Amino acid sequence: MSDDARPRLIIASHNPGKILEFQAVLGHRWQVRPKADLYVGDVEETGSTFVENALIKARHACARTGCAALADDSGLVVPALEGAPGLRSARYSGGDDEANNALLLKNMATLEADDRAAFYVAVVVLLEHADDPTPLIAEGRWHGRIAAAPRGTGGFGYDPLFVADGYEQHAAELSAEEKNRVSHRALAVQQLLQQLAA
Amino acid sequence: MSDDARPRLIIASHNPGKILEFQAVLGHRWQVRPKADLYVGDVEETGSTFVENALIKARHACARTGCAALADDSGLVVPALEGAPGLRSARYSGGDDEANNALLLKNMATLEADDRAAFYVAVVVLLEHADDPTPLIAEGRWHGRIAAAPRGTGGFGYDPLFVADGYEQHAAELSAEEKNRVSHRALAVQQLLQQLAA
Repeated sequence: MSDDARPRLIIASHNPGKILEFQAVLGHRWQVRPKADLYVGDVEETGSTFVENALIKARHACARTGCAALADDSGLVVPALEGAPGLRSARYSGGDDEANNALLLKNMATLEADDRAAFYVAVVVLLEHADDPTPLIAEGRWHGRIAAAPRGTGGFGYDPLFVADGYEQHAAELSAEEKNRVSHRALAVQQLLQQLAA
Repeated sequence: MSDDARPRLIIASHNPGKILEFQAVLGHRWQVRPKADLYVGDVEETGSTFVENALIKARHACARTGCAALADDSGLVVPALEGAPGLRSARYSGGDDEANNALLLKNMATLEADDRAAFYVAVVVLLEHADDPTPLIAEGRWHGRIAAAPRGTGGFGYDPLFVADGYEQHAAELSAEEKNRVSHRALAVQQLLQQLAA
């Protein structure tokens, strides 16, 4: 099969790490292209769930390019906070990651130890075209709990506070390799590949 | 556990068969209630995918009742027709099932045998509350092909034309028991139960 025979798949992300990751695992069957190459632009994420936001982003990329598109959405969910920070994980406090972590600690201050359970979730969707009624949907969850104080300088988001099940270290203390092996995003990508192989 | 300790789960459907089915498989952990009991009403299905329409219906039921809600959406997908009848399966022709079947045959008249592949799909979602960012999402697909002429009087929808893989009979010639055992909806419900058990 020549390069040109592979259909194009637009990655609806500006994150170079994500684009390389998807290129590595999907390049054998798609010409994986970042959306920036095709001037797709951004779209307002008006969904109420991670999967709806991922679908909005993928559909926008399909509509602008006429190609298949892949998009993801992810965040931290604290069940005892009714799912917050949830979809607003990146803009929870209106400030930076440090401010978001501080607000989360404040909002959890009165919770019992049992209620400090949390999980990171990543949803990845693949739409064949803008009107595709049956996208592939893959989800990964990384379960753990929210510690009483931040630790570590790696990762991003709530990693200084997040302690995954089976770990002593906070996520921000893990190597990038370790995190990429076990995280919600890794699980979601694995699940997507299983569905593509099925 | 007394009956009252089980949280309520609203089934966002008017179909008595579906309600009984979900009651049978989910009744041990939820008080399963049809939405008609709670005057939830209907909501416009404005989604572009089955999963988005199911989420719209479930969220509406959650918002009206303050309870968890389950909703499904399903239809027939013909990849060679870009996914049609898809979300418009029930209203493809603007007429009844017979008119829908006739229109599908007409639209497939020029397709090669290889392009007559089709699948039924059912998506079931469970939202804990109206703002739940991480619904459970289960999907079942029933693969087969579209025959050249209708046969059988059972089932509904495109069953007279749909021949599932591994069957000689058209779906409309199968017993209700057989169809309920192997269909897209059966697979979706099984997958939902696996997720609830995980």
